[in-house]
Amino acid sequence: MYKAGDVRVEDVPDPVLQAPTDAIVRVTYACVCGSDLHPYHSLEETSAGRRMGHEAIGVVEEIGSDVTRLTVGDTVIVPFAWSDNTCVFCRDGVTTSCVHGGFFDGAPSATQAEKLLVPQADGTAVVVPGGTDEALMPSLLTLSDVYLTGHHAAHKGGVRAGRTVAVIGDGAVGLSAVLASKQHGADTIILMGRHEDRTSLGREFGATHVVTERGEEGVAKVLAITGGEGVHVVIEAVGHMPAYEQAYGVVRPGGVISRVGVPQYEEAPVGFASLFGKNATLTGGPATVRAYIEAALPQVLDGTIEPGRVFDRELPLSDIAEAYRLMDSREALKVLIRP
Amino acid sequence: MYKAGDVRVEDVPDPVLQAPTDAIVRVTYACVCGSDLHPYHSLEETSAGRRMGHEAIGVVEEIGSDVTRLTVGDTVIVPFAWSDNTCVFCRDGVTTSCVHGGFFDGAPSATQAEKLLVPQADGTAVVVPGGTDEALMPSLLTLSDVYLTGHHAAHKGGVRAGRTVAVIGDGAVGLSAVLASKQHGADTIILMGRHEDRTSLGREFGATHVVTERGEEGVAKVLAITGGEGVHVVIEAVGHMPAYEQAYGVVRPGGVISRVGVPQYEEAPVGFASLFGKNATLTGGPATVRAYIEAALPQVLDGTIEPGRVFDRELPLSDIAEAYRLMDSREALKVLIRP
Repeated sequence: MYKAGDVRVEDVPDPVLQAPTDAIVRVTYACVCGSDLHPYHSLEETSAGRRMGHEAIGVVEEIGSDVTRLTVGDTVIVPFAWSDNTCVFCRDGVTTSCVHGGFFDGAPSATQAEKLLVPQADGTAVVVPGGTDEALMPSLLTLSDVYLTGHHAAHKGGVRAGRTVAVIGDGAVGLSAVLASKQHGADTIILMGRHEDRTSLGREFGATHVVTERGEEGVAKVLAITGGEGVHVVIEAVGHMPAYEQAYGVVRPGGVISRVGVPQYEEAPVGFASLFGKNATLTGGPATVRAYIEAALPQVLDGTIEPGRVFDRELPLSDIAEAYRLMDSREALKVLIRP
Repeated sequence: MYKAGDVRVEDVPDPVLQAPTDAIVRVTYACVCGSDLHPYHSLEETSAGRRMGHEAIGVVEEIGSDVTRLTVGDTVIVPFAWSDNTCVFCRDGVTTSCVHGGFFDGAPSATQAEKLLVPQADGTAVVVPGGTDEALMPSLLTLSDVYLTGHHAAHKGGVRAGRTVAVIGDGAVGLSAVLASKQHGADTIILMGRHEDRTSLGREFGATHVVTERGEEGVAKVLAITGGEGVHVVIEAVGHMPAYEQAYGVVRPGGVISRVGVPQYEEAPVGFASLFGKNATLTGGPATVRAYIEAALPQVLDGTIEPGRVFDRELPLSDIAEAYRLMDSREALKVLIRP
């Protein structure tokens, strides 16, 4: 990406191992993330270009001398952040704060490409069992980010049986959060979104109510659904201020706002009138995807969940500019990319 | 209080029962709260004056026809907010959001007075067992606010064995939070404060470290104490922006900032650079004191905790203006008032 709206496919040298803990992966499935649309809207012109993409499944082509858990030929899921999976923060499950970690976004090697350099490969990449049906690959790809970002939101928000949940945003993360909230046992799941094709999938994923209104009207609708009480957990899957404002409008006293939309703001209301007065909790952050993959993998393999249904288009890598356009114009929910 | 700095003692008509759920209490112990200093600094001139105070122990003098749990002559603890203790939010433990609740601060009847009208008396007031030693009254008075506000901070922050805690602020709430964190099993309790007489009491309450530096320097000190990792739980017991900034500076990835200092700001940093990037959680609010009194009462009665040690001065109600002055000038930590 050279500037907002300017995505190009270019030939660049193949990545090479730089550290004994690295691996080289041939990317077989990638995709475009809702968060990729933020630079697509706002990136300032850069002569060097910015390599894009942070979600991938691929085949291990080469491993560094210290890599012991991967074998050349393994099919692996590569989460959007690399992590050693052994440091003090990884042991806490906060893999996105790994002391040897980093994010593929904007890194020298990113996933919307034929080949990918994976740092801390033993800690980062998770092997998909041999012989796995190709039809499961889209769902497995969501374990690199989007589904487990929804899961992170539900987990951090403390969603469980008896909890009411509002999910703000009907993008792929919002829909994933609906599916994850259902998996966490939520009884009432209110999806706030205006795109009927998306909210329909949301209902199939477990949404019990859809609220199409925004702002004050949307808040009033959610309060009406919950008998004026508000919801126990709000999942904010957008990242813009109006979504945040809706979130503290609908959260119940003592409730939780769990954010997974990357905030496009730094300052926000948190005082007596918004969070403090009603003892609301604000949580969330970059999903610690790596910490959740092992538990989610069997659920996808046995068909318990089909998070890959968020992909409604597939394009070759050569057409990735079109993938961005389709997602930006909301003609596509999420585009699968085949390098 | 007629304006910032202007506190007067005046004769007003005794309160009278207004609802069948009310009680009239003769105040025997009251005090000045750190949060009373906020209007003491900033209240605009008001010809009517504002009745002050929200912490009290007293003797029930009169009860409304619907009051069944109290008897005339009972000694009761009155928390800083009234609540019916039966509504949906009270049942959740969020008593400060009671649908029939309110705050004594600024209400027609407040606690820095000889007599107090207690709304929702059955839900609000908690009886102290007959024959209780008068020497325990200061500690019992802290169950109306200050100690249980510290407890709320520790509880909402998830303090437990194995957790490192930083308490920002060496006022009576901060010291109470130290004591409560110790009760919750914290191993490492870092008290950030500059007043040696106060931090000394903090050490007696359980602080393992005292950091006198503020701002960047204070953050660096806390990081050094925790091996660069930051603390699991930050208790912010001040309410001003520099304290909040310290809080997100010292919180560990995945950690919690628990606020009980009433925020003197509405907007604050919560984006990628402050909270979101490291998956930090922001929680807290007005302490749900009422929900905690029954559990804390035996701890005070059997001497397990002595939270009343935060009172370092005692004055008659007639001298309350001096009590405000002493606390504002930091000549006193917390002043007990005897009407």
